Amino acid sequence: MAAISIGLLGYGTVGSAVHRLLDESAGAIERVTGQPVDVAAALVRDPARRPESPPGLLTTDFARVRDDPAITVVAEVMGGVEPTRGYVLELLRAGKSVVSANKQLLSRHGEQLFAEAERCGVQLRFEASVCAAIPVIKVLRESMIVTGVHRIDGIVNGTTNYILTRMVHDGASYAQALEAAQALGYAEADPTEDVSGGDAAAKIAILASIAFHTRVRLEEVEHAGIDDLDLDDVEHASALGYSVKLVATAAQSGGGVVARVHPSLLASDHPLASVEGAFNAVLLRGRSIREVLLEGPGAGGEETATAVIGDLLAVIGTRGTGFLQHDGYYRELERIPVRRLESPFYLRFGVDDEPGVLAQVAHALAEHDVSVAQVVQHVTKDGVHIVILTHVATEGAVRDAADDVAGFAFSRTRPVVLPVLVR
Amino acid sequence: MAAISIGLLGYGTVGSAVHRLLDESAGAIERVTGQPVDVAAALVRDPARRPESPPGLLTTDFARVRDDPAITVVAEVMGGVEPTRGYVLELLRAGKSVVSANKQLLSRHGEQLFAEAERCGVQLRFEASVCAAIPVIKVLRESMIVTGVHRIDGIVNGTTNYILTRMVHDGASYAQALEAAQALGYAEADPTEDVSGGDAAAKIAILASIAFHTRVRLEEVEHAGIDDLDLDDVEHASALGYSVKLVATAAQSGGGVVARVHPSLLASDHPLASVEGAFNAVLLRGRSIREVLLEGPGAGGEETATAVIGDLLAVIGTRGTGFLQHDGYYRELERIPVRRLESPFYLRFGVDDEPGVLAQVAHALAEHDVSVAQVVQHVTKDGVHIVILTHVATEGAVRDAADDVAGFAFSRTRPVVLPVLVR
Repeated sequence: MAAISIGLLGYGTVGSAVHRLLDESAGAIERVTGQPVDVAAALVRDPARRPESPPGLLTTDFARVRDDPAITVVAEVMGGVEPTRGYVLELLRAGKSVVSANKQLLSRHGEQLFAEAERCGVQLRFEASVCAAIPVIKVLRESMIVTGVHRIDGIVNGTTNYILTRMVHDGASYAQALEAAQALGYAEADPTEDVSGGDAAAKIAILASIAFHTRVRLEEVEHAGIDDLDLDDVEHASALGYSVKLVATAAQSGGGVVARVHPSLLASDHPLASVEGAFNAVLLRGRSIREVLLEGPGAGGEETATAVIGDLLAVIGTRGTGFLQHDGYYRELERIPVRRLESPFYLRFGVDDEPGVLAQVAHALAEHDVSVAQVVQHVTKDGVHIVILTHVATEGAVRDAADDVAGFAFSRTRPVVLPVLVR
Repeated sequence: MAAISIGLLGYGTVGSAVHRLLDESAGAIERVTGQPVDVAAALVRDPARRPESPPGLLTTDFARVRDDPAITVVAEVMGGVEPTRGYVLELLRAGKSVVSANKQLLSRHGEQLFAEAERCGVQLRFEASVCAAIPVIKVLRESMIVTGVHRIDGIVNGTTNYILTRMVHDGASYAQALEAAQALGYAEADPTEDVSGGDAAAKIAILASIAFHTRVRLEEVEHAGIDDLDLDDVEHASALGYSVKLVATAAQSGGGVVARVHPSLLASDHPLASVEGAFNAVLLRGRSIREVLLEGPGAGGEETATAVIGDLLAVIGTRGTGFLQHDGYYRELERIPVRRLESPFYLRFGVDDEPGVLAQVAHALAEHDVSVAQVVQHVTKDGVHIVILTHVATEGAVRDAADDVAGFAFSRTRPVVLPVLVR
């Protein structure tokens, strides 16, 4: 039977793994698709850097991929926003479906790219852009259609989760843990994108868009990272039985949606609390499914390649059906301000060690209707840490109360405000 | 746009939930499929028992479902093996795709049904037959094709997991925990199918077949249940830092496959160790994915209905492509005897409290090359329990050694042999 030809944009770690896995799993692929699959061409900048690649495969000429009539689907694994966006648009217009592993491209320009794919009657799939080998996009798009998923909480950045795991288990400071992550290759030399929460924001924008059928853009996602997280707070949380994780959250409520990224406390029985090291996990909550957890490695060449190939085979398996490929998947929905999100909160105030301070803090919280569940005072070398766990409150009320406390003369440090996620 | 018509076999808890969710989620469904979906007819035995159902929907006449040319796909949610099997065959022959939630039917007659579906050019999907709302079959069939999944460990029976959770947390005996499960509706009045491991065996037969592309039949799956599990062993395991779960395992190695169900010890950092109560979870291990965990509710009307609907919409989305629907998905593979499975083991020998007994036990293990990692002796009201954790050994060697010990005059009880699963 005639082989199905695939093109690649990029032949780095992921691209070459896609090729290798397609070859190694040729038998399984033919059992599933009924046809063999081959890689016809791969676009690279410098073929000389890949001397071990099969002869004739690599090309520096984009037109060879775009204009090859045998190629029906292309995997974009080159990364970057430009010139990648232009290439993808040209491929869609040439009638080729595209599979992308590029979260930055999709979270920034998804709207344009999906509109073009629809217009051209081809598919654009992107499983590999979030959580590598964990098929969370497929599950959200194809299995959770009627489940009423109303909330997603995810640990979607392995670098920060590795750093936080080291802080919790080894009592390492943020700087020490970052250094360890860099030494092991879990963090880049410039880790800003990961530790600032920007990477997680791009991923939750994609997940929220799929889950809630509305375009959530990267620039809408408020995000805080772990780069100014203090080991003191990790230790105070731990003493109270909570772990600290960088959690990406998306929620739908009353016709509105919100997505955000923030360091959060997790109760010990929360399904995300036990996600350690560089692993990722996504918890889906919905009326008809209660909660479904998907956990696995969030990065890696082969892990990402398996997601790319899952998409390639899905494109091949659904050609021409229109499934997930027509106008109207996305609709306009209101945005819920982050201030309206509700949960318990962890607060830490660095204050002078004076009588009456706790009373004034408690008074400020009461003024904003924030109810206190637990208070612990830690005497430190520079003053006192007042650590408070609140009952459920809106984030806006808690932040306003914290701002009031910050204005008191006895406040020494900026208040720390972290949401608490309970099962 | 014309609606896509669906038929139902059965209109009980799951069937009526399918109908309700399709109605409630009509907007989301149309966003995904581009077409509305309606339920044209539902076969029941006694329509009078469902007075609240829409007029004209229910029928006692199977031909009305089979012969309605508008119906392209039917959800079988009536359960049972006969006459269900005959109905499904007739539907396939009438050119209708079928979605089934029926693990007994599929694990017993899957081969015949799938062959017929292939012959007739229609689909037979069965996500709801295993783990309700957790889309493990879709993930295995469509996302894990090139990942080299070589082992599956699952907690796939919520009843037994609930009972074991009660035993661990409350120190309840098996009988007490079973009674509690029955009072809460987690266990049937006749719990045999669940507690014997039979239900889990049917599910792992289905998962192994999908994962390894070979027909694993229910009768091939060796299974032991929890019905003769002693609270003593749960407590001994707990003291050593392990939990006891009923684990269904399927493995592929060297061109052979094996599937089995057995109560097992789980190390505290094993991903399945924290699966509590009536939840299910499946851990997939493969070369390219390392490990991926899927966890969620394993039963429930709406939970099962969401899986049925996922399949219905997948059938609609892949009509006519041949994806996953052709000869050759399954091949013949050898069977690995359970005796060849390797892991550490937990052993408990009930023996007379006499000098020299431990030496003889240790000698018997050594004779079979089973190496001891840890020994604890518990004095009980009737003799001594010698509890042993072994290093990795084959199950055959461990069982032979245990049989030797059982033959000694000092042995008071049948030896307990449980595999230990480590991360």
